[in-house]
Amino acid sequence: MNLFSPAGDDLLTVAGRTFHSRLLTGTGKYKDFDETRRATEAAGAQIVTLAIRRVNIGQDASQPNLLDALPPDRFTLLPNTAGCYTADDTVRTCRLARELLDGHNLVKLEVLGDERTLYPDVVQTLVAAEKLVADGFDVMVYTSDDPILARRLEEIGCAAIMPLAAPIGSGLGIQNRYNLLEIVENAKVPVIVDAGVGTASDAAIAMELGCDGVLMNTAIAGAKDPVLMAHAMKLAVEAGRAAFRAGRIPRKRFASASSPVDGLVG
Amino acid sequence: MNLFSPAGDDLLTVAGRTFHSRLLTGTGKYKDFDETRRATEAAGAQIVTLAIRRVNIGQDASQPNLLDALPPDRFTLLPNTAGCYTADDTVRTCRLARELLDGHNLVKLEVLGDERTLYPDVVQTLVAAEKLVADGFDVMVYTSDDPILARRLEEIGCAAIMPLAAPIGSGLGIQNRYNLLEIVENAKVPVIVDAGVGTASDAAIAMELGCDGVLMNTAIAGAKDPVLMAHAMKLAVEAGRAAFRAGRIPRKRFASASSPVDGLVG
Amino acid sequence: MNLFSPAGDDLLTVAGRTFHSRLLTGTGKYKDFDETRRATEAAGAQIVTLAIRRVNIGQDASQPNLLDALPPDRFTLLPNTAGCYTADDTVRTCRLARELLDGHNLVKLEVLGDERTLYPDVVQTLVAAEKLVADGFDVMVYTSDDPILARRLEEIGCAAIMPLAAPIGSGLGIQNRYNLLEIVENAKVPVIVDAGVGTASDAAIAMELGCDGVLMNTAIAGAKDPVLMAHAMKLAVEAGRAAFRAGRIPRKRFASASSPVDGLVG
Amino acid sequence: MNLFSPAGDDLLTVAGRTFHSRLLTGTGKYKDFDETRRATEAAGAQIVTLAIRRVNIGQDASQPNLLDALPPDRFTLLPNTAGCYTADDTVRTCRLARELLDGHNLVKLEVLGDERTLYPDVVQTLVAAEKLVADGFDVMVYTSDDPILARRLEEIGCAAIMPLAAPIGSGLGIQNRYNLLEIVENAKVPVIVDAGVGTASDAAIAMELGCDGVLMNTAIAGAKDPVLMAHAMKLAVEAGRAAFRAGRIPRKRFASASSPVDGLVG
Repeated sequence: MNLFSPAGDDLLTVAGRTFHSRLLTGTGKYKDFDETRRATEAAGAQIVTLAIRRVNIGQDASQPNLLDALPPDRFTLLPNTAGCYTADDTVRTCRLARELLDGHNLVKLEVLGDERTLYPDVVQTLVAAEKLVADGFDVMVYTSDDPILARRLEEIGCAAIMPLAAPIGSGLGIQNRYNLLEIVENAKVPVIVDAGVGTASDAAIAMELGCDGVLMNTAIAGAKDPVLMAHAMKLAVEAGRAAFRAGRIPRKRFASASSPVDGLVG
Repeated sequence: MNLFSPAGDDLLTVAGRTFHSRLLTGTGKYKDFDETRRATEAAGAQIVTLAIRRVNIGQDASQPNLLDALPPDRFTLLPNTAGCYTADDTVRTCRLARELLDGHNLVKLEVLGDERTLYPDVVQTLVAAEKLVADGFDVMVYTSDDPILARRLEEIGCAAIMPLAAPIGSGLGIQNRYNLLEIVENAKVPVIVDAGVGTASDAAIAMELGCDGVLMNTAIAGAKDPVLMAHAMKLAVEAGRAAFRAGRIPRKRFASASSPVDGLVG
Repeated sequence: MNLFSPAGDDLLTVAGRTFHSRLLTGTGKYKDFDETRRATEAAGAQIVTLAIRRVNIGQDASQPNLLDALPPDRFTLLPNTAGCYTADDTVRTCRLARELLDGHNLVKLEVLGDERTLYPDVVQTLVAAEKLVADGFDVMVYTSDDPILARRLEEIGCAAIMPLAAPIGSGLGIQNRYNLLEIVENAKVPVIVDAGVGTASDAAIAMELGCDGVLMNTAIAGAKDPVLMAHAMKLAVEAGRAAFRAGRIPRKRFASASSPVDGLVG
Repeated sequence: MNLFSPAGDDLLTVAGRTFHSRLLTGTGKYKDFDETRRATEAAGAQIVTLAIRRVNIGQDASQPNLLDALPPDRFTLLPNTAGCYTADDTVRTCRLARELLDGHNLVKLEVLGDERTLYPDVVQTLVAAEKLVADGFDVMVYTSDDPILARRLEEIGCAAIMPLAAPIGSGLGIQNRYNLLEIVENAKVPVIVDAGVGTASDAAIAMELGCDGVLMNTAIAGAKDPVLMAHAMKLAVEAGRAAFRAGRIPRKRFASASSPVDGLVG
């Protein structure tokens, strides 16, 4: 076993598929598909998500096709339901994706609560998750950081729980570490932080909490140099994962303190 | 130029020497010199610091010699004055180091305020820095995160400013980001965070603030798996540096917000 | 108008009732009813919540009765459904409370997700809220800090939204300020932080965010000196409220900075 | 003993003088002396600081005199050396103050490092403190949050240590809680946080750490409603003090957790 290699035995398994990369990336908001491709490669991403309602994967033969930049034989496509605000809408969208992608059944479910905040509508998300699981999809599900809901989504049969760190596109970083930790400690499926990461340390923190992966789009695509930021995020996810596995020192007030900080100050 | 390679043109220059690694490591607190060596290599460190009063670099021929594990032709040695509580003591210690190391004049100055906290004594530090600079040393100086003192130490002629993130060995992470930022924005010599890092994200944050490097010892040597943590820290420093150069997105309450967070909440 | 008096025109209105105190307190976990009474008075609370399944308000004539310590003519009683894990159970409990209290229809709804964490079960909470509102109750509802759910609970007709700051009894303080802010800015009914406050500054922060009140129990009852802590919390809620109304200065890096901090560091 | 009254036996003693208020206020930046007076009264301040080089306390008989608004028989005046950048300058300024105020020897020493940041110059501060103490002044000293320097200033004979929370006028709140805690736990003279408070909760946090008082100016004078903010700060300081004395509950992940948070997450 080679501890240092991300290609070693520390693999991410989602719905029976195995990956050495723990950084999932979005494909939106780039200048063009060439930048998308270069950033995706710099990120070392193996799973790439795409908004099935917004991106051309062959619907319009006269336009550039994302799949030329990110060929499905090299990347695991993760169609998502961005822009859907009801359970029914997401189910329809996932079925469309499956059709367009020849029976591909891995999807990322997101039902949004409103356009302004992009917070998830967790009630509709539960409804949609049940329908999609029943319909044979492998559902990776965007949700809030509510541990009770995360458990319910896992019970329904979702393949991965994807709690937000903060609102989509906010770059605020992880707002509630204890909620994420609670989800991670209790889940038997992968937990992948989705939304809210702003910079490399945010991704590292998510991994240090024990998350299995991080998905992001705006933090990379919106950076001044998206390709370099993609590289930063790749390293940060690997760094956070390695730190989690290596077992950090406890926080103490001083090296000479006999016990860790005690929760009275902080 | 290859943006992604730490061996590219994004180099750290200290006292005329050039390095591609921005992670400096200590050599104490390991199980044995073999673990020291393996962790140092996993960290990719090129500058390694050693407590001249505590470690055998040849003073005792009957004992293992650190320089066998970390040969000076591969690593830049940075003798430090750990355990010194007065300016005079540090000056003596630095001269001893120079003698033992055949005229090597790069040193890390630390004058500690007390044994319990290991906070620097900044007044004695200023006195010692003046003497050492006058005596021809290249002085990398451990200090508090006080921006006015950092400037003074630079004016004295120190080769690098090394503010603490938190007390030595505490693992508390960066306590005062604004102080570090102020030091970084005004310094013309490298600013290297020294002390207080606990895990990978702490190192990434230091680099994202614009620091030129990070020095650590306990966070690696005290981890459950020191060699894996050394690797994590290597990646974290590279991640933070790349994120700094890539230009992060601003924090906003939502993707749809027209301006960044405004300092009223947080 | 007297800006300084909590009895001035800055009143809290819940379900048509008006209060000058914005600190609501629980009645559990005290040594005895006398301590409950003294802490409640030190807190200046006008609304006191009681776990209808756990406390004697006359069910057992041979035991001390909470209503002797906190007479209903001086305090607005807020029966809560602590210990209920399903919508049905909470509805039954609220009806029992209404019977015991001669038609009193103000209740605090909480449906818990599990015994270990005491996180709310928001799905069951929505179901119960609909039933209780339909049954004529004035429902103050304990929930997560999910802004979309908060809006839904308001649409159902709840009289107050009571998001957690952190898990019940944790003392962790406010974990997600942006979620609370989002709830506050959009609600037309009072928003009262319920659960997670640990010390006075936590309560002040909740009020500074614009919350209409704070409810707590453990932070007071579990303090070394509960009566003094009750007094501290009274002052903290008033302080936070006054600071919110007074309009704080923006955070800037220095007095001389021309604009507030910009969301890039923090 | 009345625990709740700030006039009870929980008094602040500085240089032999005794005060029931722990909120010290500045007198600058107000619209006019009438607003200064109203804010000072709302703050309940008993010690008021004034920049001896900037404010008219009788030097110019044709202009309004601050002492008419804040008569010395009601308030303890604390002349400060704002605007001084060298030890010599501060000593001269303190002597001038003593002359103008008929032998009054209580002063607040501040030697600033530069105009842009207003950070203290701690080296010049030490020099000035020695001279002023030798010259018979009771010296309350503005300094950084460096615990080693705080101890040195106390050894020199300063009457109170006044570490910053953040830069003067920044409103950033307390940047380094552990440094303040370390100062507080080791000082035998009062520790009064001076500079950096932005809103009520910041003041409460300072007091919860065990500080003996808080001094502020911009946070009050710069608020939209300075008089109401002064009232908020009065309550916040009292709240934080009471919470400190009452002994807060420890932070735990859940009520059911058997031990406090352990320093691994946070």
